[in-house]
Amino acid sequence: MDTTELRVETGDRLVTDLTGAALDFCRDRGDGLLNVFVPHATAGVALMETGSGSEGDLADALDRMLPPDDRYGHRHGSRGHGRDHVLPAFVSPSVTVPVVNGAPQLGTWQSLVLVDSNVDNRSRHVRLSFVAG
Amino acid sequence: MDTTELRVETGDRLVTDLTGAALDFCRDRGDGLLNVFVPHATAGVALMETGSGSEGDLADALDRMLPPDDRYGHRHGSRGHGRDHVLPAFVSPSVTVPVVNGAPQLGTWQSLVLVDSNVDNRSRHVRLSFVAG
Amino acid sequence: MDTTELRVETGDRLVTDLTGAALDFCRDRGDGLLNVFVPHATAGVALMETGSGSEGDLADALDRMLPPDDRYGHRHGSRGHGRDHVLPAFVSPSVTVPVVNGAPQLGTWQSLVLVDSNVDNRSRHVRLSFVAG
Repeated sequence: MDTTELRVETGDRLVTDLTGAALDFCRDRGDGLLNVFVPHATAGVALMETGSGSEGDLADALDRMLPPDDRYGHRHGSRGHGRDHVLPAFVSPSVTVPVVNGAPQLGTWQSLVLVDSNVDNRSRHVRLSFVAG
Repeated sequence: MDTTELRVETGDRLVTDLTGAALDFCRDRGDGLLNVFVPHATAGVALMETGSGSEGDLADALDRMLPPDDRYGHRHGSRGHGRDHVLPAFVSPSVTVPVVNGAPQLGTWQSLVLVDSNVDNRSRHVRLSFVAG
Repeated sequence: MDTTELRVETGDRLVTDLTGAALDFCRDRGDGLLNVFVPHATAGVALMETGSGSEGDLADALDRMLPPDDRYGHRHGSRGHGRDHVLPAFVSPSVTVPVVNGAPQLGTWQSLVLVDSNVDNRSRHVRLSFVAG
């Protein structure tokens, strides 16, 4: 298995595009599975269209599902941070993408993104791993 | 890695059963991991019971979480289509199933399904990939 | 592929920690992917912090998203059981974790947990599978 850990600057963005890094990592690797894994308890990874408004739509959906208020039992960090710890149960920190001839088989409108609602941490790690088939 | 892309007719169904196709694909392959991947930005894959009402229950849950109205920033396509682009953040387009002796290790009540709330597209692609262990 | 099925006593807990079992299973295996799979239609697996209140926060979030009442078409079992059948569409029963030198690459605050809202079943099976890379 080839594996590497990237450092990703997320700033205060909910959604950070990782597609370019994933394409670079898979190039020249042949066929296999790409696993994208976030070793954090307040972030997930997703495949979604970017640049057409869905980032804000996802933020709104998360605010409805997991309001950033003081209802949470988990009370470390900023107000509402408790909801960041529930997010990974719904937006998994692991996604696996098939790779054919060095190319992740993403659809035309799919981007690989980090979803990180935790504004207290402005940089994150992401592990990319490739298992040849 | 053995990999193939299926064309699936979804019509206007939210849930389309892929279990038979997955069983056929894995037969005679021995042990390994089956990855099921949908290369679309408005669909996911899930494992759930079918035929006992849960398809409608999932539709209702999605309507509560992601109401099909005009609140979305992503405004292409039919009214409410913006919500289809948020769905894959919660219902991932990728799932991996262990295979033993050519048989996906699904539980008795688990079916593999495509979840596609986008009624504007009536057929979809699904990629099945097998990595031997 | 090395694979084994564990029996896990869940009692009436929503969240049951599987981290120790996963660490034990991967030890001495080198590099590869660990797949954690629950062969049940009313449970999922997740990576989250435990012991700081997030278990209850997840329970509350699920009660908001999927109220345990009689609205469901799937009506077998206890009142509200229909919602247990929708849960796996959002909390997937499969998660894949990269393993390096026999160690799952979990972050400091990540635990691997079974999420099982079905109080009618007090024990569950979990399949652990390792594919070397």
